[in-house]
Amino acid sequence: MDRPLILITNDDGHDAPGIEILTRLMMEIGDVVVVAPDGARSAQSNALTVTHPIRFKKLEEKEGLSRYSCTGTPTDCVKLALNEIVKRKPDLMVAGINHGSNSAINVIYSGTMGAVLEGCENGIISIGFSICDHSLEADFKLFESYILKIVREALQNGLPHATCLNVNAPVGKIKGIRVSRQCDGRWIKEYAKRIDPRGGSYFWLTGNFENHEPAAEDTDEWALDHGYISIVPTTIDLTAHKAMKEINTWKLD
Amino acid sequence: MDRPLILITNDDGHDAPGIEILTRLMMEIGDVVVVAPDGARSAQSNALTVTHPIRFKKLEEKEGLSRYSCTGTPTDCVKLALNEIVKRKPDLMVAGINHGSNSAINVIYSGTMGAVLEGCENGIISIGFSICDHSLEADFKLFESYILKIVREALQNGLPHATCLNVNAPVGKIKGIRVSRQCDGRWIKEYAKRIDPRGGSYFWLTGNFENHEPAAEDTDEWALDHGYISIVPTTIDLTAHKAMKEINTWKLD
Repeated sequence: MDRPLILITNDDGHDAPGIEILTRLMMEIGDVVVVAPDGARSAQSNALTVTHPIRFKKLEEKEGLSRYSCTGTPTDCVKLALNEIVKRKPDLMVAGINHGSNSAINVIYSGTMGAVLEGCENGIISIGFSICDHSLEADFKLFESYILKIVREALQNGLPHATCLNVNAPVGKIKGIRVSRQCDGRWIKEYAKRIDPRGGSYFWLTGNFENHEPAAEDTDEWALDHGYISIVPTTIDLTAHKAMKEINTWKLD
Repeated sequence: MDRPLILITNDDGHDAPGIEILTRLMMEIGDVVVVAPDGARSAQSNALTVTHPIRFKKLEEKEGLSRYSCTGTPTDCVKLALNEIVKRKPDLMVAGINHGSNSAINVIYSGTMGAVLEGCENGIISIGFSICDHSLEADFKLFESYILKIVREALQNGLPHATCLNVNAPVGKIKGIRVSRQCDGRWIKEYAKRIDPRGGSYFWLTGNFENHEPAAEDTDEWALDHGYISIVPTTIDLTAHKAMKEINTWKLD
């Protein structure tokens, strides 16, 4: 059998330590094409570049690996790779390793998970990997064998339709893996206000995550807080199916 | 009872015709605060501005209406409004009226729906309105009475936890409303390649939507194709709950 074709991207940029490690790991499994942003694109969600064109540039080509940088967002990278760069549909698409958590509601803001949703949308087995440590010097070593294990199981078993994986690792010792659901919570106190020399106000995004269900043991936040890797099966179907019946009772005629 | 407090944003910019109409309509129902981007921010999904600070500016204040522009994305607008601008939590958050469809998978790219997910995340009844017409001269008239009806029902009945609404209107005559699910489909042939005068390639996002289930009568695409307004109850919980059991059978120890 041919070696699997693996597409990799991230949102920290093509030269971030996290994507270098992920690239090395994926080369153990298949032929790798990296198409990653030419700089940091954190919190870009599924943003697309529509008001100006994008470009890509080949950075490296060797046996089993080609690497490109792209001027767009992580989602742009996946779209451009699938439409213009790879010669066939990849067997796997992975994003990361993200420097910073993409657990709980962060999934909707994450450029990493944006790319993963895009891969999933295109019918590719797609997985995002993140570590709960924003530092560029984050220690990924303990995470590495789990990443290989998760990818191998995903390639062997496939994923249900319209489903991808959001994998987060805790900092430090890892007790194991827990398949989890997205924790309910939100960000509060989200801005740091500053005053410029002319007296104008400007605002930096910051904030604290407020966990609405700290005691629930089946959430990704619980897993991470207790030293486990969380795997959240994540869907691109945002329909609140259970709510359809209720909305149908509204007087809308 | 006090008049409801209604927060409005969009992704086409504070001066787009769609948001002017939505503002006029919402002033029939409550006190309105508009916080909208200072220019077009289409396809910004839930993108957040993290690498530089953002600002807002008051544009207008009169009885029942205050309007602000913001230098950020639609999601930034909602966050900044809730944290720094409104005096109490709004009773309703609406986005749009978007010039262009946000049906099917477009929900994950849409700046309009990004803002709506953000409102929902903050526990506010949140609704996005879009019309399947990109033109700035789109005729919203037939849509207007439906918007008022949907908003009044939402305020009266509330919405289930973590659920918001994605409302799209067809172009032309409207037969009625259908509560729908997000259609399965994807975009193909997504780039138009151009060559610059120096011989370099660049790529514009374009593409065609491929409907994977054209015969299914319960999707938003079907409703819109057949002259109905679609309402898709939409959730911020991206967990593929049904897939958890399956992933739990993987050999991950």
